[in-house]
Amino acid sequence: MRIKYEEMVGQFVRVLEKYGIHGEDALVSAKLFADASADGVHTHGLQRFPKFIASIKNGSVDVEKRAVPVERIGLIERWDGQKGPGNLNARICMERAVALAKENGFGIVALRNTNHWMRPGNYGLMAVQSDCIGILWTNTTPNMPSWGGKNAVLGNNPLVVAIPYRDCPVVVDVAMSMFSYGKLEKYKREGIQCPVDGGIDEDGNITRDPARILKTHQVLPIGYWKGSGLSLVLDLIAATVSGGLTTNEIGKLDTETSLSQIFMAFDLASIPDRGEVEKQIGDTLLGIEESTPVKEGMKVHYPGQGMKRTREESMKLGVFADDGLWQQVLEM
Amino acid sequence: MRIKYEEMVGQFVRVLEKYGIHGEDALVSAKLFADASADGVHTHGLQRFPKFIASIKNGSVDVEKRAVPVERIGLIERWDGQKGPGNLNARICMERAVALAKENGFGIVALRNTNHWMRPGNYGLMAVQSDCIGILWTNTTPNMPSWGGKNAVLGNNPLVVAIPYRDCPVVVDVAMSMFSYGKLEKYKREGIQCPVDGGIDEDGNITRDPARILKTHQVLPIGYWKGSGLSLVLDLIAATVSGGLTTNEIGKLDTETSLSQIFMAFDLASIPDRGEVEKQIGDTLLGIEESTPVKEGMKVHYPGQGMKRTREESMKLGVFADDGLWQQVLEM
Repeated sequence: MRIKYEEMVGQFVRVLEKYGIHGEDALVSAKLFADASADGVHTHGLQRFPKFIASIKNGSVDVEKRAVPVERIGLIERWDGQKGPGNLNARICMERAVALAKENGFGIVALRNTNHWMRPGNYGLMAVQSDCIGILWTNTTPNMPSWGGKNAVLGNNPLVVAIPYRDCPVVVDVAMSMFSYGKLEKYKREGIQCPVDGGIDEDGNITRDPARILKTHQVLPIGYWKGSGLSLVLDLIAATVSGGLTTNEIGKLDTETSLSQIFMAFDLASIPDRGEVEKQIGDTLLGIEESTPVKEGMKVHYPGQGMKRTREESMKLGVFADDGLWQQVLEM
Repeated sequence: MRIKYEEMVGQFVRVLEKYGIHGEDALVSAKLFADASADGVHTHGLQRFPKFIASIKNGSVDVEKRAVPVERIGLIERWDGQKGPGNLNARICMERAVALAKENGFGIVALRNTNHWMRPGNYGLMAVQSDCIGILWTNTTPNMPSWGGKNAVLGNNPLVVAIPYRDCPVVVDVAMSMFSYGKLEKYKREGIQCPVDGGIDEDGNITRDPARILKTHQVLPIGYWKGSGLSLVLDLIAATVSGGLTTNEIGKLDTETSLSQIFMAFDLASIPDRGEVEKQIGDTLLGIEESTPVKEGMKVHYPGQGMKRTREESMKLGVFADDGLWQQVLEM
């Protein structure tokens, strides 16, 4: 079914208010959830909402708390999320990184002790709205083996880079694992193989079979050994620069909380040759769009174009919503 | 054959002096080449040396020029490489980023108009020697298709992240393509398949066959669509922040030159809880090393450990060198 964006936001606000997030914060949080669904990132929109409410109920998210600045190491601002709502904390820190970028061309905020930020692309889009390049990432609980190993010792550590371009910015929003567990379960349910290598099977071989990967829990990092290394360094930078916990330390907690995150912004508006920059970005994107497709009849897109189309459709026809999930929200 | 490190450096210095790079610069450049070989990155050490000399001879590298600071956008320093030697320029800019990090906790230098920096890991190791985390990347000439397309419109844009840890730092040094053309040719020569997916064949299917990939020239980005997006944003950030050329623009030149690069450093020494940070990094790395291996009897390593072993071996037994290549250098 499809729900009008405003109605979805309204229902989310109602529920959030009921669970202790009030006023402007309820509206902001509701929009962050609805935006994810409207942009087609269903796993982190409506689908995630009941889980978020559950994390308030079980006390892992403290609705009273928000990220606050705690110290400055030279240019780096360290903020403490105080275990407040992850999406509101991330929004505060991205806003601050953008404000710093407006002062200094570049801004960086390192956040510790926060919760799951839901859909990371949202904060990249915030940077873009202020004519900034946004770079942000989070660590997570251990959910991926290091290359060559069996045990989950690395996080999938989602990374976002968003670059302003007219009404269709570039948005790269990628976890360091090739597929999420949610995606693997979906493939298994539908009885299909992963489109590309997704994990390691019981015999230690690389496989596209979701059922076998779900058995071993050995998901593949993007680029095999390469993403394994990238995941490691994203975690270590986030934790050491923020003064927060590493994936290794988060894994020792009862639940996924006390995450460490980095928010960077480059202010494109400060660049003297801003017009030339726009042309450079445009020419590059055009080069991608004009590529000869591998599969005849397909069109080659740059990251962010699909999202824009989905968003426009959602705004016109309503946001796609799973009937059962929507009913669940209405009854909350 | 194996050549003593000092002898290799000495021969490189002799040749560099002959082609117009003198004194301290010749020694620094020679060491950067020898270090790459000593660390096992043969493609960017001895193997690359004759190509570097050729680029001096054909005028694409100007031996008289070095990177110079040109402007400041808030905290960001923009440097112009003036088409000088890429390795010396990169070294100057990494040194400057580290100096800025020592002042402000964090430093960033954006370099334009430079040449191939040879082995990128070297500059990450420089940051580490000053107790800094180093993050650096370059764009390149177009050499990889965008996901879904056939034409090379993206660069493989190598990215390095190096993190200090005792005598064995973490060094992640990864191009955004799964395999370099050099590697594919090596596999083809040896008659073996790529260990993992490497490219797209004539029928538009993903393949591990190096011969078929070399025919289409459609190498795979790491993580398929994910690395395609990452390559794009690394290029756009490097070019826009430095005021330099994009991969798209470099592709219009006769040769691969006028590259754009980013050098960032976080000073770990400025972090108040430096001792705690050391423990966090150590515990994380131990978690990796103690992983149960996928293949029985193998040991799981973190990125940087193999390099250290190779370096120690090179220093004890001499640096591994291809006989023909070494002869070529001796005759230069």
